[in-house]
Amino acid sequence: MKTTVAAGIDIGGTNTAFGLVNAEGTLLFQSVFPTPDTPEELVQNVFKVLSTAIATSNYQLVGVGIGAPNGNFYNGTIEFAPNLKFTGIVPLAAMFQEAFGVSAVLTNDANAAAIGEMQFGVAKGMNNFVVVTLGTGLGSGFVCNGNVLYGHDGFAGELGHTIYDYEGRLCGCGRKGCLETYCSATGIVRTCQEWLAKETTASVLRNLSTLTAKSIADAAAQGDELALKAFEFTSMVLGRALADTVAITSPEAIILFGGLANAGDLLAIPLKHHLEANLLHIFKNKVKVLRSNLKEADAAILGAASLIWHAND
Amino acid sequence: MKTTVAAGIDIGGTNTAFGLVNAEGTLLFQSVFPTPDTPEELVQNVFKVLSTAIATSNYQLVGVGIGAPNGNFYNGTIEFAPNLKFTGIVPLAAMFQEAFGVSAVLTNDANAAAIGEMQFGVAKGMNNFVVVTLGTGLGSGFVCNGNVLYGHDGFAGELGHTIYDYEGRLCGCGRKGCLETYCSATGIVRTCQEWLAKETTASVLRNLSTLTAKSIADAAAQGDELALKAFEFTSMVLGRALADTVAITSPEAIILFGGLANAGDLLAIPLKHHLEANLLHIFKNKVKVLRSNLKEADAAILGAASLIWHAND
Repeated sequence: MKTTVAAGIDIGGTNTAFGLVNAEGTLLFQSVFPTPDTPEELVQNVFKVLSTAIATSNYQLVGVGIGAPNGNFYNGTIEFAPNLKFTGIVPLAAMFQEAFGVSAVLTNDANAAAIGEMQFGVAKGMNNFVVVTLGTGLGSGFVCNGNVLYGHDGFAGELGHTIYDYEGRLCGCGRKGCLETYCSATGIVRTCQEWLAKETTASVLRNLSTLTAKSIADAAAQGDELALKAFEFTSMVLGRALADTVAITSPEAIILFGGLANAGDLLAIPLKHHLEANLLHIFKNKVKVLRSNLKEADAAILGAASLIWHAND
Repeated sequence: MKTTVAAGIDIGGTNTAFGLVNAEGTLLFQSVFPTPDTPEELVQNVFKVLSTAIATSNYQLVGVGIGAPNGNFYNGTIEFAPNLKFTGIVPLAAMFQEAFGVSAVLTNDANAAAIGEMQFGVAKGMNNFVVVTLGTGLGSGFVCNGNVLYGHDGFAGELGHTIYDYEGRLCGCGRKGCLETYCSATGIVRTCQEWLAKETTASVLRNLSTLTAKSIADAAAQGDELALKAFEFTSMVLGRALADTVAITSPEAIILFGGLANAGDLLAIPLKHHLEANLLHIFKNKVKVLRSNLKEADAAILGAASLIWHAND
């Protein structure tokens, strides 16, 4: 008998990770490549790799689950995603459905990560939590009363596009001062770029040809003053935004995920401080700040595949 | 046979409105008095009025539903309510239960209003919306996937205590710049007080012994420049906060309720403008801004009573 599998695809601003997952949540196959410039190319490339893997292992594909920035669960579309090169409204679920000949379900990438954490990660048994993905942008997936919050339009969870500073940095969405222009892997790079230009502080970052969240974290770990200040600033901005988010949704935990979260305590310790400092009295010392314990790409792939395996939960 | 009724009690920073509601949602009796300084006095006064009404009309009381600021649904308590004179944690549901000898359920006042709107008001048939009460403070009740959002702690919906300005006005909660210090019946009074002190603009508000949201609305309706500017400013602040709220929860509608909402188009028209101006692209021209069509106190009383009648929906 063939092993039935669901495909889980996590489309990010930089990379697309995907894999095959069985009903027990075991990742049987996975792969990753840079996210292509067009949706057609994306579907074609994923199809090529997965159909070969399916054929060679004698699997039977039952469905395709997709997590993507600006993903709309209700319509199966990606709509005006500022961090992808895809333009306008892309009917990606339908495109995958056509390619593979099985049903395809799409949701926001952060929602997929939240489902992954709830099924297999640190959010097991939690009914109210939020996953914050700190990658190219800032994504968020809210679980309320045990269900992913999609909202009326299917677009709930755009925390990255709440405004931190109305006169602030230009955002890919066309507005100014969105949270993700400060709090994301890209955001902390912009912060350092700004300060390197403005200040004369000595910093190892001045010697780097390319600044990345990783190189800033490395510099901070070595005690670089400017890099440490960048983590302090990023944590303050994120702590304030999360304190407001707690006031609205009262989660049990905030789960950090993605590139910038890999900085670990460099981010988590000042973040916890600023979150507590800004929380309304009744929420103080109640909200856990956790890091995903799933491997970088796994939560999102498993979460995306869960859209198929747990469609009727 | 006796008519079975549930008591619905809406505790506000200024007044407490309460009544008796049958299973069909008809308000059979209602009354209102200024909210007393202690919970004991509150329970005693409500008990006196309702037990008389019940006895004279031959009703049978099946339960007591309570809406209150900082109300915790899970614990039946009011906790550290900045807009009430009650201090600390008050086990109000237990106190009502003891007085009446029937079960009592308590929730946030704005949640009670949201339930009232969903059962009997403009939110009939909606699964995702938010009720914003603009009274002494700013309360909010979120309905997500057809259920009131209580969150992990039972305190979700404290939109009034998200921060608008970190260097801003002192709030009753002890922090600075909370949204409700700007956007509430009290907030617009503070705005006018500040400007009357700072500016020399002629205004009919200078001749009033007491400023209220109502007197400011009356002045604005007569074309008073300062009063109109206060509505414009309040709408801008609220529009920005609601745009962020939409990004997180993606509601079908925002329903305005309470003292300041009675200003009607004076608030609603500039609010709609500022909301749209601040919304992320994907949410533009989708979110309805509605006014409650229930009588001032009715939605909250009916909503509170619904906690009993629809406890197992």
